[in-house]
Amino acid sequence: MKNFFIPVMLFLLSASGFAQNDDSTTIKKIVDETMTHGNAYNNLRKLCKQVGARLSGSPQYARAVTLVSQMMKDAGADTMYVQACQVPHWIRGEKEKGQIISGGKTYDLKLCALGNSVGTGDKGITANVIEVRSMAELNQLGASGLKGKIVFFNFPMNPTYINTFRAYGESGVSRTRGPSLAGRYGAIGAIVRSLSSNLTDYPHTGVTVYNDSFPKIPAVAISTNDAEYLSSEIKKRNPVMAYFRTTCNMLPDNTGYNVIGEIRGSQFPREIITVGGHLDSWDLAEGANDDGSGVVQGIEVLRTLKASGVKPKRTIRAVAFANEENGGRGGEKYLSEAKAKNEKHIFALESDEGGFTPRGFSLEMNEAQLNKILHWKNLFYPYGIYNIGPGGSGSDVGPLKNIGTALAGLNPDSERYFDIHHAATDVFENVSERELHLGAANMAALIWLVSEYGM
Amino acid sequence: MKNFFIPVMLFLLSASGFAQNDDSTTIKKIVDETMTHGNAYNNLRKLCKQVGARLSGSPQYARAVTLVSQMMKDAGADTMYVQACQVPHWIRGEKEKGQIISGGKTYDLKLCALGNSVGTGDKGITANVIEVRSMAELNQLGASGLKGKIVFFNFPMNPTYINTFRAYGESGVSRTRGPSLAGRYGAIGAIVRSLSSNLTDYPHTGVTVYNDSFPKIPAVAISTNDAEYLSSEIKKRNPVMAYFRTTCNMLPDNTGYNVIGEIRGSQFPREIITVGGHLDSWDLAEGANDDGSGVVQGIEVLRTLKASGVKPKRTIRAVAFANEENGGRGGEKYLSEAKAKNEKHIFALESDEGGFTPRGFSLEMNEAQLNKILHWKNLFYPYGIYNIGPGGSGSDVGPLKNIGTALAGLNPDSERYFDIHHAATDVFENVSERELHLGAANMAALIWLVSEYGM
Repeated sequence: MKNFFIPVMLFLLSASGFAQNDDSTTIKKIVDETMTHGNAYNNLRKLCKQVGARLSGSPQYARAVTLVSQMMKDAGADTMYVQACQVPHWIRGEKEKGQIISGGKTYDLKLCALGNSVGTGDKGITANVIEVRSMAELNQLGASGLKGKIVFFNFPMNPTYINTFRAYGESGVSRTRGPSLAGRYGAIGAIVRSLSSNLTDYPHTGVTVYNDSFPKIPAVAISTNDAEYLSSEIKKRNPVMAYFRTTCNMLPDNTGYNVIGEIRGSQFPREIITVGGHLDSWDLAEGANDDGSGVVQGIEVLRTLKASGVKPKRTIRAVAFANEENGGRGGEKYLSEAKAKNEKHIFALESDEGGFTPRGFSLEMNEAQLNKILHWKNLFYPYGIYNIGPGGSGSDVGPLKNIGTALAGLNPDSERYFDIHHAATDVFENVSERELHLGAANMAALIWLVSEYGM
Repeated sequence: MKNFFIPVMLFLLSASGFAQNDDSTTIKKIVDETMTHGNAYNNLRKLCKQVGARLSGSPQYARAVTLVSQMMKDAGADTMYVQACQVPHWIRGEKEKGQIISGGKTYDLKLCALGNSVGTGDKGITANVIEVRSMAELNQLGASGLKGKIVFFNFPMNPTYINTFRAYGESGVSRTRGPSLAGRYGAIGAIVRSLSSNLTDYPHTGVTVYNDSFPKIPAVAISTNDAEYLSSEIKKRNPVMAYFRTTCNMLPDNTGYNVIGEIRGSQFPREIITVGGHLDSWDLAEGANDDGSGVVQGIEVLRTLKASGVKPKRTIRAVAFANEENGGRGGEKYLSEAKAKNEKHIFALESDEGGFTPRGFSLEMNEAQLNKILHWKNLFYPYGIYNIGPGGSGSDVGPLKNIGTALAGLNPDSERYFDIHHAATDVFENVSERELHLGAANMAALIWLVSEYGM
C-alpha cells in the first residue's frame, strides 16, 4: 500500500503546487495592476472633496449616489443599478453648546450630539454630573443616584488591546446603550467620552440606540481631553454641574440607495460575489476612512479585474451600501432583494475598518469554506496579508448570513482608526494611497480566487 | 529507548513551554507599560517642535543633543554621556531656484539641492536637458551625448514592490551615484526625480556621493509632479532647456555627538546591548519619521524597562547616533570607542525605517543567533510582529559587525515612508502615537529577551 500511495500523493502534491503557482502568477498580475494604475485614491478624493459628508437622508447622500454610479461605470461594470430603501433621516441642527460649571467658573466643552439622539429643547439642560466608569457602576447607582442628573460615561478605550476594535467594542457600550439606560434611571442627559484612542480636542459622534421602553434623553460626546478635564474637576470639587444644548432631531424616513455595479460571470453568472463598503457617513467630516475607502476599494476590485484581463467565472458585484451608520437599512434591503429574486450569493467581502495597510481577512463561514480560504493563505503573504482566520465580517454584508452566504471582512492595521473615526478628522488627507490600494489589491485577489474556484 | 525518550522529551517540551509562558507574561507587562504610559510620542513632539530640523554640524543639532540628553535622564538612565566626533557640515544656502525653458515658456520647478552637493555659483547653470531612465542608458549616452548637458535622472520608484525599501534601493542609485557619473561624462548639472512613492509637489532631498576622481557637478531633486511634467515636455518638444541655481556649500567639519543613556545590567554588566536610531535629520523638515522616531523609541525602551520593573541582566544602551544622513560618522565613532574600550557588544537593534506600525525584525547575524531569535517568534505575534528573518539592520549599528555584534533592524510597515522621507512633510503630525509606541514596545520586548538570555 505504501508504495502505491507515495506516487499518488506526490502527484497530488505537485498538482496542487502547480495550481498555486498559476494562481500566484494571476494574483501578482492583479496586485501589480492595482498598485500601478489603481484609481481608488482618485475616486476617494472626488467622493471626499466633491461631496464630503453624506449622512443618510441628506441631499449630499443623493449626490454621492450619482457620483459613485458614474465611478462604477467608469470602472468597467457591465451593469449598474440602484436599490431604493427607506432610511432614517436624523439632522444635527445648530452647532451644539456645552459647559462645565464648577468652582464658580465655566469651561466650554468641545462636544457634538450623538447620532439619532433627541435634542435638549431650546433652553438646553443643566444638572449635576455623575461620572460612571462601567455599566455595573451605572446600575448600582440606579434611580436613587441618577434621577435628575446628567450621567458622564467615562469609558476610555483600553490602550493595551493591540486590535483597537476590541477596545472599541468594550467601551462602545457607553455610547450605544449608556444614554438609554441612564434615561431608564431618570437621568435627564448623557455626556459620553469620545470613543477615541488618543487625547485630542475633537468630539467623535456615532449612533446611540434608544430602548423604546425607557425615556429618551439627549446625549452628546465630548472630546477625550474634555473627558479628562471633567473627570479631574469631579475629583476635585464634587458636585460639578454641566449644561448642554442640542437641537438635533429625527425627521420622517427618507429614500436611500444601495449602488451596485456588476461584472457578469463568464461561466457561472448566477453565482454572485459581493464586495464593498457603505456609502453613508457621519456628518462631521468626509467619511474618508469610514467608509469612503471601502466603497472605492469595492469599485477598484471591478476596475482591476477588468483591466488585468482576468475573466471572472462568477458574477462580481461592487456594492456601496446605504445607511450603515444609523440604521443598517441598506444591508437589509440587499438581503430582501436577494431573497425576492432568489439570487445565489456565495460570498461577500466587506471593507469597513478604514483604508489602512491590510493585515488580514476575518472569515464568518462554515468550516469547509474556512479551510478552502485558509488553503490560499500563502498566496497573500507577499502582499502583507498574514492573518487569515475566523472572525466578524461587516454590518452591511452581515444580513446575507440569513441565506447562508460565506462572509469575510478586510482587516487593515487598526492603530490609527479610532484617532479619526466619526470625528472631523476623518478626511481624505488621512488616507495613504499605497495603503488604500494595497487593501484593494488583496481584496481583488481574494474575490478573484472565489470567482475562479467557487465557495 | 523509545520509552525512555518520550518522558524526557515531554519534560523538555513542557519546560520550554513554561519558559515561553513566563516570557510572554513579562512581555505583556512590557508592552502594556509602553502602550499605557509610553512617553515616546511626547518626546518626539518636543524634538520636532522645540528643535525641528537638525542637520549635522548645525546649531540645531547641538540643541537636539541637549534635549535628548535630558530625555535619557528622565527615562531612567543610570548613566548619560556623549561621544564627540567630527561630522561634515553642509549648508543649503539660499532657497534654490529652477526653471524649465521649453516652447518659448518657462515653468518654475519645485526643487531642492541634494545633500553634500556643490552649488552652481551665483549665476546658476542653463543647458539642454537629457533624460535618462537607467544607468545603462547613461553609460550608453556617454561623453558624446552628455557633455555640456544637464542630465535628468527619471527613475520612478517601482510601485509593484510591496516593500518600498526595495524600490528605494533600486531607484536610489539615481540620486546617490547618478550626478557623479554624469559629471564623469562632462555633464554640467544633474536633476534627479525625487525618490518618492507618490505624485506630489514636494522635492525630496538626500545625499549624493561624489567620486573624487570625477568632476563634481551641482545636483538637485525635483518633485515627482515636476519630473512627470519635465519628461512629458521632453517627449513633446526636444530640446528642452533647464536652469537652476543653488548656493549650497560644504564647510569644514564640525563637532557632532552620539548621545548615550545606559541601564547597567544586574548580572552581566559588561555585555552591552544597543538600541536606537539617528539624531541628525535633513534640513527641510522635522525629521519626525527619519529618524526622530528611532531616537525616541530607543529612549522609550529604557523608560519602559525601568518602569515595568524588569531588571535587565545585561547592560542596555539607548543611543542617538550622529550624522547618519550625510556621513555615517556617528556609527563609526561608536565602533571605534567600543574597540578602544574593549567593550563586549552582543546585540544592537536600530529603528530607522519610520515610526509606523511594526511588522517585523530583520536580522543580520550568524545562524545560531538567528535561530535563537526565531525561537522567540511566537512571543511577538500578539503585538503585530509576524515577519522575523534574515535581512539588513541599520547604517548606524552596521559598523559593529566589525566586532561580531549580532545586528537587527525594526521593520515597520513601509507603505507611507517614501511619501514623506527627506521632504518637508516629514513632520510630527505624520506620526501616529499608537504606531510609534507599538514599535517601541516590540523593541523593548526583544531587547529584554536578549538581556535575559544573552546572544
